Amino acid sequence: MPKKYKRTKTRFQSFGEFDLIARIQSKLPKHAKSTILSIGDDAAVLKPDSGSYLLTSTDTLVENTHFNLSTISPEQLGRKSLAVNLSDIAAMGGHPKWVLVSIGIPKTLPLKFLDRFYNGLQQMSARYNIDIVGGDTVSSKKHFYITISVLGEALKKKYFSRGNAKPGDKIFVTGTLGDSALGLKILLSKKIWKGSPDDKRFLIQKHLDPIPCLEEVRLIKPDFKKVGAMIDISDGLLQDLSHICRTSKVGAMIRKDQLPNSQPFESLCLINKNSPWDFMLKGGEDYELLFTFRPENDKNLKYRFKKAGKSLTQIGVVTEKPGKLVLLDPESKAETLSKPFGFDHFAIKI
Amino acid sequence: MPKKYKRTKTRFQSFGEFDLIARIQSKLPKHAKSTILSIGDDAAVLKPDSGSYLLTSTDTLVENTHFNLSTISPEQLGRKSLAVNLSDIAAMGGHPKWVLVSIGIPKTLPLKFLDRFYNGLQQMSARYNIDIVGGDTVSSKKHFYITISVLGEALKKKYFSRGNAKPGDKIFVTGTLGDSALGLKILLSKKIWKGSPDDKRFLIQKHLDPIPCLEEVRLIKPDFKKVGAMIDISDGLLQDLSHICRTSKVGAMIRKDQLPNSQPFESLCLINKNSPWDFMLKGGEDYELLFTFRPENDKNLKYRFKKAGKSLTQIGVVTEKPGKLVLLDPESKAETLSKPFGFDHFAIKI
Repeated sequence: MPKKYKRTKTRFQSFGEFDLIARIQSKLPKHAKSTILSIGDDAAVLKPDSGSYLLTSTDTLVENTHFNLSTISPEQLGRKSLAVNLSDIAAMGGHPKWVLVSIGIPKTLPLKFLDRFYNGLQQMSARYNIDIVGGDTVSSKKHFYITISVLGEALKKKYFSRGNAKPGDKIFVTGTLGDSALGLKILLSKKIWKGSPDDKRFLIQKHLDPIPCLEEVRLIKPDFKKVGAMIDISDGLLQDLSHICRTSKVGAMIRKDQLPNSQPFESLCLINKNSPWDFMLKGGEDYELLFTFRPENDKNLKYRFKKAGKSLTQIGVVTEKPGKLVLLDPESKAETLSKPFGFDHFAIKI
Repeated sequence: MPKKYKRTKTRFQSFGEFDLIARIQSKLPKHAKSTILSIGDDAAVLKPDSGSYLLTSTDTLVENTHFNLSTISPEQLGRKSLAVNLSDIAAMGGHPKWVLVSIGIPKTLPLKFLDRFYNGLQQMSARYNIDIVGGDTVSSKKHFYITISVLGEALKKKYFSRGNAKPGDKIFVTGTLGDSALGLKILLSKKIWKGSPDDKRFLIQKHLDPIPCLEEVRLIKPDFKKVGAMIDISDGLLQDLSHICRTSKVGAMIRKDQLPNSQPFESLCLINKNSPWDFMLKGGEDYELLFTFRPENDKNLKYRFKKAGKSLTQIGVVTEKPGKLVLLDPESKAETLSKPFGFDHFAIKI
C-alpha cells in the first residue's frame, strides 16, 4: 500500500506556478533531435518525419473516478497516466513521440507527491523514448486530475483503424483478459481474498501498472496488409469489440472457451468461487490489443509472438450482421448479447 | 447576464458516454483534407504539410478558477476556451489546424449547456478553419473543466520564440492593454460603475470573448527576419515581458506614457477615479501580442497594421541587463520593477 499523503493547507503557500514549471522542467531528460523547442514557450515546436501521418489522442484521469490515491503510488499514477495514452497510439499502429501533460493540482497536495508523480511519468517516457514537451499546471479545488495528450507518427496510410474489419476475419487478442478488473476488485474489496499473495500482487500490479502494447504492435506490423480493425481494450472486451463492429458495420462471434486468462486470475477465481466471465468479458483497463485478421495464413504472426514470448489468442470470427455480438459457450450454445457491454462513465444508475 | 442553469441530479441519468460522443460528433462540421481520421477511433490521424514544423500547446480552464458560469454564457466559454489556445499558436507565428477537446462534466450539468458550449467551440473553430479531431469526456465531481490541446504548423525554422530578443530591439504591443482585466473587475464588482453602458459592455466583451491575434501575426510575418522574441499577453504585460527577458537573457525599459489603452478603458477609469496602471501593467487575459523588433526600418510593419485597421504601438526597448525591468513614468522618472509582475495561479497569499 502506498504511503498516505497528509493533505495540508500550506504546501503551495510560497511556491509559484512558474517555480513549479521550472521544477518540472528540471526533472525532464534531454530532448530528442525531433523536438526543436520544448516546455517554456507559448507552444512546443516539433519536427515530424517527412511523409508521415500524425496520430494524436488525449485521455483524462480524475482522482476518485479513475484512481484513488490510497491505492496507487504517485510513481504508478505517473506511469499509468502515460501508459493509457500510449496504448491508444499502439492501437493505431503508431510510434508515440511527444506528450503534453496538464495537471489540476489541489493546493493541499504535497510537492513531494508531484515530484514522485513526475518520476513515474519520466520512467514511462524514458522506456519508450518519448519527449514531454509541454502542458499546463492549474490549481484544482479538490481533486487531482491529469490530462495527457500524446502525439505519434505512422507511415503514410499505414495505420490501423476500427473501421476495417470484414466478415470472415479472425479475431485476435494479445495477453490475458480480466486481470486488471479482478486486481481492482481485490484492491477495493473489504473481504479477505483467499489464495497466494503473489497471485494477488500480480493482478493488482496489472491494474495499477499497465504496460502499453507497443512491442506487440511491432510484432503485428509485418502482416500489416492482413490486419483488419484494431482497438485497445480499455472499456472491456465486449464494449471495445462493439466499437469495432459499429465502425466496421459487422458483427462478431466469440468463443467463451478460447478467451485467454492468466494462471493467477484462474486460480483466484476458483479458490474464491468467483465467476470469471464478467471480468473477462466486461472488465476494463486490460490495455491489450484486440484486432481482426484476414482469413489467411497467420503462421508467421503466431511465430513472431511465440519467439518474443508474448501471448496471442484467436477468440472468434467477424460475422455479417452489423452490431450482432454472439457468445458461444463451452457447450456451443450461442447467446446473443445485448447492452450494456461494459463500463460507461456516465450511464450510472442513480 | 447569461441564463442561470439549474443544476439537478438527473440530467445524465439515461445518457451514456458513447451517446455523448456521438452527439458531439454530429455537431462538428466536415473535416479538412489534411484530417485523415477524426473523432471515433483510438487516435486522430493527421497529415502535416511536408517540411513544416508542428506547434502544439495546451490550456486548461477550470470553473470558478478561470471562469464563472454565472457571468459567461456557454457559447462564450466555448469560443474563449479555444481562443486562448489559438493565441498561443499565434504567438509562435503558427497556423492552427487541429484541436483536441477534453471536458470534465459534473453530472448536474444540463445537456443543453454542453450543446451551447460546443456551438461556441464550433463558431471559433469555423472562423479559423480548425478541425476538432478528438478529446475525452469524463465525469467530474463538482466543477466543469476544459482542457484543449491545439496543433498548428509553421514553416520550417520560421517560428517566433521567447528567446530571441536582443538589446536595442524595439518592444511592440498589438491592440490595447487592461481592457480584459477592467472588464472582469466590472463584471465581478458589487458597486455600480459610472459611465456609458456601451463602454462597460465593450470591456466585459473583451474579457469574455477574446479574439486570438491570428490576423496580427499574419501582418508581422513579412518582417520575419527583423522580429526578435514574441509572446501573447495572458498573465499581464509585465509578467509576460519578464518571460521574454528571462528566456532571452535581456532586460527591458517600458515607457508608461506609450502604453496603448482604449477609449472605453480610459473613460471608465477617469469617471470612477480608478488608477489605470495595475490593469495595464499587470492585468491578464488581453491576448494581445508582445514582441521585439530589431532596431531597423519598421515603416512597412506599421503601414500593414494601419492599412488593416489594427493597432500597433512601440512601448519601449530591450536593454542589456538580464531580468531588469524599468518603467519610465510620464515625467521620465525611472522605476526599477520587482516581482510579483502579475497573475500567478499558485502564489496566493493565505
